[in-house]
Amino acid sequence: MTYCVGILLDAGMVFLADSRTNAGVDQISTFRKISVFEKPGERVMVLMSAGNLAISQALNNSLRNKTLATDGDSLFTAQDMFAAARHVGDTLREVHRYDAEALKDHNIEFNASLVFGGQIGREPPRLFCIYAAGNFIEATPDTPYFQIGESKYGKPILDRVVSRSTSVAQAAKCALISMDSTIRSNLSVGLPLDLLSIHRDGLRVQSHVSINEDHDYFRMIRTRWSESLRHAFHELPDPEWMRRS
Amino acid sequence: MTYCVGILLDAGMVFLADSRTNAGVDQISTFRKISVFEKPGERVMVLMSAGNLAISQALNNSLRNKTLATDGDSLFTAQDMFAAARHVGDTLREVHRYDAEALKDHNIEFNASLVFGGQIGREPPRLFCIYAAGNFIEATPDTPYFQIGESKYGKPILDRVVSRSTSVAQAAKCALISMDSTIRSNLSVGLPLDLLSIHRDGLRVQSHVSINEDHDYFRMIRTRWSESLRHAFHELPDPEWMRRS
Repeated sequence: MTYCVGILLDAGMVFLADSRTNAGVDQISTFRKISVFEKPGERVMVLMSAGNLAISQALNNSLRNKTLATDGDSLFTAQDMFAAARHVGDTLREVHRYDAEALKDHNIEFNASLVFGGQIGREPPRLFCIYAAGNFIEATPDTPYFQIGESKYGKPILDRVVSRSTSVAQAAKCALISMDSTIRSNLSVGLPLDLLSIHRDGLRVQSHVSINEDHDYFRMIRTRWSESLRHAFHELPDPEWMRRS
Repeated sequence: MTYCVGILLDAGMVFLADSRTNAGVDQISTFRKISVFEKPGERVMVLMSAGNLAISQALNNSLRNKTLATDGDSLFTAQDMFAAARHVGDTLREVHRYDAEALKDHNIEFNASLVFGGQIGREPPRLFCIYAAGNFIEATPDTPYFQIGESKYGKPILDRVVSRSTSVAQAAKCALISMDSTIRSNLSVGLPLDLLSIHRDGLRVQSHVSINEDHDYFRMIRTRWSESLRHAFHELPDPEWMRRS
């Protein structure tokens, strides 16, 4: 499984992905699920993928090759983020045309979902969730984040804390708490994590860190968040009527 | 959908169930998902159900009828909780024999899962999770709770707070927080709630309340838990390296 979350803020964007892939519980590996397409000062785009790893690697390979080609559309020629998202969707459809029938012969679903976001030129940053069919939806102020993969365990904290006016640092902190809740509950989501941020109008990756077991900040978050939750829990009054009379 | 959680403690048991059923999002109703089988001073048992409502109603009806019959096995004749759980499983298999083929003709899965717990005589309280096939597992000290239905949103807080030594009142508080997180994230889980507790060796329902929008304690929990989480979140240091330089 996988857990990735992308957050769109007035101040920029945050992307967080785990790196565990599994084919059953007896075959677990580490693969990065986050790719950056960047021309500093002109455009920056981030793609996170969940689902079949072969599909996402084929997609990434094709997107990368297109940026290197001297002609044809690519993420480096897209006029705006909508066109870029459509280019990702179209390229995913090419992978589908190439692979889907063979997968079907083996009863394997064409399973892929993507979170894609970034900024091109003066257009504000935009965030998309792209489906296996290549169609997509865009984040709006009401729903400033998208999750893919194992999304449920980590959703409540996002809903309670994140809005468009949250700072980049705070959104990163919230994403890490959301990831921690997910890792605790689903063995198939695991370290290392990729945490990446973009500041609005920066037009480059502001920060990209790999987070392992010994990462001080994430260790602090894990310990102190657990303590804070337990403390908050004990501070709340118990239901008196349920005490043994 | 449904969300039910049952918790087994050294001090007793807590059961919490929502009451929303839906056939699609355009047909939502309120049905209680919790049933009590009780002979005060001798035995007390609680059954919660998720899945197909017709199946759980047929099951409950049959279990109830058997307790009223003058001969044959029933929840009122079972020697211990294991025998009682097996009786519930066997009765569910009778429902399966009666209904499953007709359901299959309509491509409807025989979908049922149950949390069943209680105490008979001097045996300690026991808690079971019973599957559609009528087989079941029992809670142990390592895993003192079972959830059925929409379980993921509300699991992290249970994992962080509940152990066998938790008090009945605190376990009830935790179950309500777990339910609150679920209700916020899944529209098909909804009020009113049924909250029921049993104290060890009480051999009767200690408390059974129905919780609606205007229930003071649950309203307090919802408001204050949100505030506490946001406060705890803001108390945690932000990742300084992600601030705009």
